[in-house]
Amino acid sequence: MAEEVKLFRNWSSPYPLRVVWALKLKGIEYEEVFEDLSNKSSLLLKYNPVYKKIPVLVHNGKPICESLLILEYLEETFKQYPLLPQNPHQRATARFWANFADEKILQAMRFDVLSKQGREQEEAIVSIKEKLKYLEEELKGKKFFGGESIGLVDLALGWIAYYLNIIEEIIGVKLVDQEKFPLLMAWIQQFSNIPIIHENWPPRDKLLDRYSGFRKAALGEDTPK
Amino acid sequence: MAEEVKLFRNWSSPYPLRVVWALKLKGIEYEEVFEDLSNKSSLLLKYNPVYKKIPVLVHNGKPICESLLILEYLEETFKQYPLLPQNPHQRATARFWANFADEKILQAMRFDVLSKQGREQEEAIVSIKEKLKYLEEELKGKKFFGGESIGLVDLALGWIAYYLNIIEEIIGVKLVDQEKFPLLMAWIQQFSNIPIIHENWPPRDKLLDRYSGFRKAALGEDTPK
Repeated sequence: MAEEVKLFRNWSSPYPLRVVWALKLKGIEYEEVFEDLSNKSSLLLKYNPVYKKIPVLVHNGKPICESLLILEYLEETFKQYPLLPQNPHQRATARFWANFADEKILQAMRFDVLSKQGREQEEAIVSIKEKLKYLEEELKGKKFFGGESIGLVDLALGWIAYYLNIIEEIIGVKLVDQEKFPLLMAWIQQFSNIPIIHENWPPRDKLLDRYSGFRKAALGEDTPK
Repeated sequence: MAEEVKLFRNWSSPYPLRVVWALKLKGIEYEEVFEDLSNKSSLLLKYNPVYKKIPVLVHNGKPICESLLILEYLEETFKQYPLLPQNPHQRATARFWANFADEKILQAMRFDVLSKQGREQEEAIVSIKEKLKYLEEELKGKKFFGGESIGLVDLALGWIAYYLNIIEEIIGVKLVDQEKFPLLMAWIQQFSNIPIIHENWPPRDKLLDRYSGFRKAALGEDTPK
């Protein structure tokens, strides 16, 4: 049967990027549907009526929502280039860190570190560095979170390898440095070196504009930048 | 090899209850370690250093944290009494609703519906009923969320079948009624009728006290009850 795979995404969000990478790593042909999130298509609303969010993967007409669940689905459906190890305990550990990446890092980076100022921002920075320390620990003795090759956790955290530097530039604070995060710095480099990864980054200038806009909007437009 | 399975839990939380049910449904022998969450054991802190929370399952010395990840682990490790269907799309759908149960229902019930008053509580009640409507829809044509037998979503949402009525009693508002939620009401009954489910509910009076205490603490002790 000819597989029909469609990915509803936008150009800038880290969430669909995980799915893009997984599809390409697994060598799955797919069609991309770019959504304007300020004017969502009726198809997106039909496929994800609960959250109305991207990404949505539609495989042979059936929608799957939420980026980490899409990765699990792809893993179960397309066996080539496994994203998870075989061992159930190692699988549970990978899922733990992928959830951690969403719940403790991604949201905090976007809504606290990037979108606050003064004392609140300082506290958010202390907090995010504590969280990042767990990732530094997790990389001990490994090239990637997935071991010798990239896996679920690398894809879940992969946005950091590109977006972190943009956030640092906007707020004027270095969050991850060579002295305190040598393994994370090495991982950022090695992860970014993989062609499928860096070939799919959004344009940097455009992303810098967009994330500056997020900060400006969060702080109120009349706040000095 | 003799399997050594330990579950770190407390007596009242809905999260470890999911794991208790899964272990019993799968017929796995295990030992329970009851934690006093105001004075956590060094073992709990060792096994779950990131979140320091229950439940933790320790299988042959290796810890697995987070209740939904523990269910996935049990599913992969002990094949008897499957909690997830075989079909990848149905598996993704079950995981979607299990996450929804955590992110949109459990937290909102405990921290908004139970812990607010006045206008804020009214808004929380409107909001939770909208969320519960999705579950009502999901039950159409099915006995359980899992179909003919209980599965991942039933275990994730199962606490409702017992705790909902306690919350309703404390706040003096009926959240789920026969007229608007006939399928959810039928599910509550059928789910509670399963011996492994109702044999493991915490004592009702004690739970009522505890949840009253949550509300009192959230509103400030001098607030009229």
